[in-house]
Amino acid sequence: MYKKLDSNDVKYFKSIIPEERILLGDQIIEDYHKDELGTIKNAPEIVIKVKTTEEISKIVKYANENIIPVVVRGSGTGLVGACVPLYGGIVLDMTEMNKIINLDDKNMVLEVEPGVLIMDIYEYVEKRGFFYAPDPGEKTATIGGNVATNAGGMRAVKYGVTRDWVVAMEVVLPNGEITQFGRVVAKNSTGYSLKDLIIGSEGTLAIITKLYLKLAPLPEKAISILIPFNDVNLALASVPKLLQSKVTPTAIEFFEKDAIVFTESYLGKKFPETRYDAYILLTFDGMSDEEIQEQLKQASDLYLDNLGAEDVLIVDTQERKEDVWTARGAFLEAIKASTTFMDECDVVVPRDKIAEYIAFTHKLSEKYQVRIPSFGHAGDGNLHIYICKDDLDEERWNKVLNDVFKEMYDKAKEMGGLVSGEHGIGYAKKAYMKELLGNSQIELMRGIKKVFDPKGILNPDKVI
Amino acid sequence: MYKKLDSNDVKYFKSIIPEERILLGDQIIEDYHKDELGTIKNAPEIVIKVKTTEEISKIVKYANENIIPVVVRGSGTGLVGACVPLYGGIVLDMTEMNKIINLDDKNMVLEVEPGVLIMDIYEYVEKRGFFYAPDPGEKTATIGGNVATNAGGMRAVKYGVTRDWVVAMEVVLPNGEITQFGRVVAKNSTGYSLKDLIIGSEGTLAIITKLYLKLAPLPEKAISILIPFNDVNLALASVPKLLQSKVTPTAIEFFEKDAIVFTESYLGKKFPETRYDAYILLTFDGMSDEEIQEQLKQASDLYLDNLGAEDVLIVDTQERKEDVWTARGAFLEAIKASTTFMDECDVVVPRDKIAEYIAFTHKLSEKYQVRIPSFGHAGDGNLHIYICKDDLDEERWNKVLNDVFKEMYDKAKEMGGLVSGEHGIGYAKKAYMKELLGNSQIELMRGIKKVFDPKGILNPDKVI
Repeated sequence: MYKKLDSNDVKYFKSIIPEERILLGDQIIEDYHKDELGTIKNAPEIVIKVKTTEEISKIVKYANENIIPVVVRGSGTGLVGACVPLYGGIVLDMTEMNKIINLDDKNMVLEVEPGVLIMDIYEYVEKRGFFYAPDPGEKTATIGGNVATNAGGMRAVKYGVTRDWVVAMEVVLPNGEITQFGRVVAKNSTGYSLKDLIIGSEGTLAIITKLYLKLAPLPEKAISILIPFNDVNLALASVPKLLQSKVTPTAIEFFEKDAIVFTESYLGKKFPETRYDAYILLTFDGMSDEEIQEQLKQASDLYLDNLGAEDVLIVDTQERKEDVWTARGAFLEAIKASTTFMDECDVVVPRDKIAEYIAFTHKLSEKYQVRIPSFGHAGDGNLHIYICKDDLDEERWNKVLNDVFKEMYDKAKEMGGLVSGEHGIGYAKKAYMKELLGNSQIELMRGIKKVFDPKGILNPDKVI
Repeated sequence: MYKKLDSNDVKYFKSIIPEERILLGDQIIEDYHKDELGTIKNAPEIVIKVKTTEEISKIVKYANENIIPVVVRGSGTGLVGACVPLYGGIVLDMTEMNKIINLDDKNMVLEVEPGVLIMDIYEYVEKRGFFYAPDPGEKTATIGGNVATNAGGMRAVKYGVTRDWVVAMEVVLPNGEITQFGRVVAKNSTGYSLKDLIIGSEGTLAIITKLYLKLAPLPEKAISILIPFNDVNLALASVPKLLQSKVTPTAIEFFEKDAIVFTESYLGKKFPETRYDAYILLTFDGMSDEEIQEQLKQASDLYLDNLGAEDVLIVDTQERKEDVWTARGAFLEAIKASTTFMDECDVVVPRDKIAEYIAFTHKLSEKYQVRIPSFGHAGDGNLHIYICKDDLDEERWNKVLNDVFKEMYDKAKEMGGLVSGEHGIGYAKKAYMKELLGNSQIELMRGIKKVFDPKGILNPDKVI
């Protein structure tokens, strides 16, 4: 179906892109075959390190005319295979399009290229008194990748997800045309929201070449509290009650003892508290110390008096902050290091159903005799659940993984949840999404795909 | 192109809907021909007061098979002709689908039928300690209409627009199928966001039959301050500076003296302050009185010391609150009453360009010798500008209106703005949207329309 690259194609690309930014054959290291999780792999025929929108436009136009697949790649930190070039063809490496173009301080909008790392965005804007709120765990991800998956992150409880912080974007359409969806404005009722369609479309509809991000004034500071429980259900049942109260937490994270144990061993570093079974980690930020202290007090009282907490540990010294948040940031890596291989599930369920869902995964773990550690964004009902291969042989592993996934996604469906809260669908979760949403929604999505990309050159076989 | 209704069609509809909910011929009052502004008019062939999703599904399926246009109508408070049945056919009157179905207090989500008035939503949730933040001026609008235009409103500065408060929706597709876009969850990276595509699509893609709205805890109270200026530019230039500071206003409204003058005469009631040329009206809300007082103090100091305000009037007594907000709520009606006929422009521009845009409309008023009062959501860059016919004859009026609109939308485009901030495109603004967004985006929207509605029965000739 797709044309294989020949010497004429390579010649054309070399005529428009300097040779040192083109990788072929052995120059293409294995990283380009896969993403962070590495469950799906395939080699591209060419990698082009693009630097400008115009270069992308020319490459895509040519690819569209010749029916060569084009897969966009940021830092490759995805977990569902979205950046894997399933049919070979072209990988566009976006990491050199990493300029922060303009800080419009009057409209509080940051204009960036898509290859900027989110950690660099935080550093740039915070130094200047501004705040970009979405806060996904993986800080070396590119902002383009974040937008392509509608990444969530810890601070979503108070500030929403990436979608809520993108006001406009420049894109290249599959025919090479350059256009802008949205504007640097605060409201928009001007036709169908094409911008919102691109957010979360994982490189299948258009290529994002520039982003206009909303900023807020930087909060004065943020303080966390760590709340241990003797019972997982009590910990999770506290979340809806907290959110109904008058406090406004920035983040509500949840983890169990085993996540801490792996992480202590992975980091070679003690966690401040390990005596209890389950933990809620809350953060509060604000424009004044009094405002934060008032919220901390209210939340602490509520937890100790009414919500069954065993203790409340204020995470306010620099050292303790580092201990707690370094550990929280390392959960994924630590679980990965604790096993031979793993796969993940990123379901999102109604907030009041998390306890029941976690209990369900514990039962699955027993039923299938497989380790299933998890942690998650309790404030959003979004769980990260890892199925660990450990010493299972390949055949047994494939069977178990398949069965466990099926049960998990069926349960999410039954509870009114969804397949992915923030990691996306990519290639790995397609079947589960289809099962959950049903044929007619998939057909609508396929129709939309065809409107944008009639020849199917952009990230083929992903999402739908 | 569309089939005209015959006796067999009517017979079918009478077989599925009780006769007292079907209007034909003279039973169809003129209100059903037009919206609030009334610039565009046409009579439907039948009006059906629907009560259930299943009824809508049957009607739409039949209409699709027989190629009869279907136009959805809420309270008819629109300003761009979106609910006008341009090709006759069926008008679905949604106002009897007005049940509040469920308050899910654990997930803080309200499930409603689309015909519920937004004033009824406020009353219902606030009584129970919850808050639905979007706050469009027209409180007798239905929530379905609000979602269909992605309505904005006063509190958008702090809380965003309708889009940000819709977590899921049930819709009927043109083939009669009933499906749900989104779920009662806080995050979603599960495929293309079909929900976000329906929001703002003005009844052209699918019919909204149920909505799941996000709620927040109800703020303890809200206090406004009225800030007069001797100079329009000073008033508007203050807005970006205020937003960069550490205060978080809920609303930032702007109006000029003439809007107050019309409103005093329209309401027969004095406004608390009329000596100055321009006014900024700020609101602050919060969970405690101290928090609000602190913000009021900071904002007042900033305005008096650095932003050129002539005074700061705290709107805290019930009486003054009513005087100010009743006036603010009556601007549109008051301007309408001050002239023989008018049309409106709802542009949105980058916040730092509002002063320049208002100055531009003053110049247009002089150039064309036509009255152009305006007011607006200064915090969002969203202006409501009214071109008044007064004593112009029909021919001159049409010419002037056409020329003024063209200059206004060209200016918005030049400034990086958009045609509509919150009122939508409907029929009246189609040409301006096309001019501003360009052909290729309109073609993408047309393609999407075709995917959802291949026979073009839903609200034909609207938006695109």
